[in-house]
Amino acid sequence: MLVDFKNMQQRQRANFINSITGYKSANLIGTVDEDNNSNLAVISSVVHLGSDPALLGFVMRPPTVPRHTYENILQTGVATLNHINADIVEQAHHTAARYDREVSEFAASGLDEHYDEWPAPFVAQSKLRIALSFYEEKPLEINNTVFMVMRIERVYVDGVVAEDGWVDLSALDTVTVNGLDSYGKVETIARLPYAKPKTEK
Amino acid sequence: MLVDFKNMQQRQRANFINSITGYKSANLIGTVDEDNNSNLAVISSVVHLGSDPALLGFVMRPPTVPRHTYENILQTGVATLNHINADIVEQAHHTAARYDREVSEFAASGLDEHYDEWPAPFVAQSKLRIALSFYEEKPLEINNTVFMVMRIERVYVDGVVAEDGWVDLSALDTVTVNGLDSYGKVETIARLPYAKPKTEK
Repeated sequence: MLVDFKNMQQRQRANFINSITGYKSANLIGTVDEDNNSNLAVISSVVHLGSDPALLGFVMRPPTVPRHTYENILQTGVATLNHINADIVEQAHHTAARYDREVSEFAASGLDEHYDEWPAPFVAQSKLRIALSFYEEKPLEINNTVFMVMRIERVYVDGVVAEDGWVDLSALDTVTVNGLDSYGKVETIARLPYAKPKTEK
Repeated sequence: MLVDFKNMQQRQRANFINSITGYKSANLIGTVDEDNNSNLAVISSVVHLGSDPALLGFVMRPPTVPRHTYENILQTGVATLNHINADIVEQAHHTAARYDREVSEFAASGLDEHYDEWPAPFVAQSKLRIALSFYEEKPLEINNTVFMVMRIERVYVDGVVAEDGWVDLSALDTVTVNGLDSYGKVETIARLPYAKPKTEK
């Protein structure tokens, strides 16, 4: 069925276009500003960019209204990324509410700040926590979003790292996002061998 | 536990860093070259960029060796994006094998080309198929990857679009990726209301 999304209403269209790219990563970004006000924001656009150097990227919405996370990263050069697990889905989603800079989304959502050898706050309840430093930003002129390129500096995992480096995210109860507001848990169906042409032995 | 990934071996480190960004979208990109050789490639870095205009992005690995998908998009200006569902996980993963340009990963993997009012091939077995046109590329100098910005032109859904525009991906059997090679199916645990500050009614 061809879906006529161009004639959808704004909110309907946002739900639709946000659904069709597939399942998304579910993370919380922790930052502080120059006055040490902490901020926490749910984000579903994190992508892998490279393993060596270890890099990830994410999309920030247009900085035409106050964007505390974006401003804090530019001010301090650091952030944390924290996996959302099934126990904290409601708290994590609540960080999307628009609070003033003086209100910390940690306190507003009921999640706890945790400091661990990094000048930005981690989420205590998260089982996989990453310390990030800012590398560069790529502005996307077409819609004023910004693609952020960040270095992965430290990684904390409250669970098992397999001998070959793989982390089973289902064992950490990490969730995934479908659209703007639906969260799901994942059951592994297959881990497949490295793909080789069928003529090779 | 702090994980000492900087001293991991290359493959181990790739498995680890590819796992820690969270669950990834699972898609196949279909393209053709100027001589009409088709190509199909599994990709896990698709992210939502905006709903109006409807845009998505994905990361292409360094074009220092032949990258058929990347070259085909630049040559023709078009591509398709096709959700991977549970029934085609093995075929989809096999498209990562390195074949020469003359060999189509459609034939090699056992997936079928489907043409539908767009000059690039869709995957017949996929239940959510997107026609894309190239908008721009943002080279990331730090590791020679390229972030591709694509316009969403047409969307075909073999299933239900909710009244509010949301698409339940679990009803389409769309899968998600954990790391480089693990695929999972998703069970929805919650669809949450739009987040508002707690003081608002």
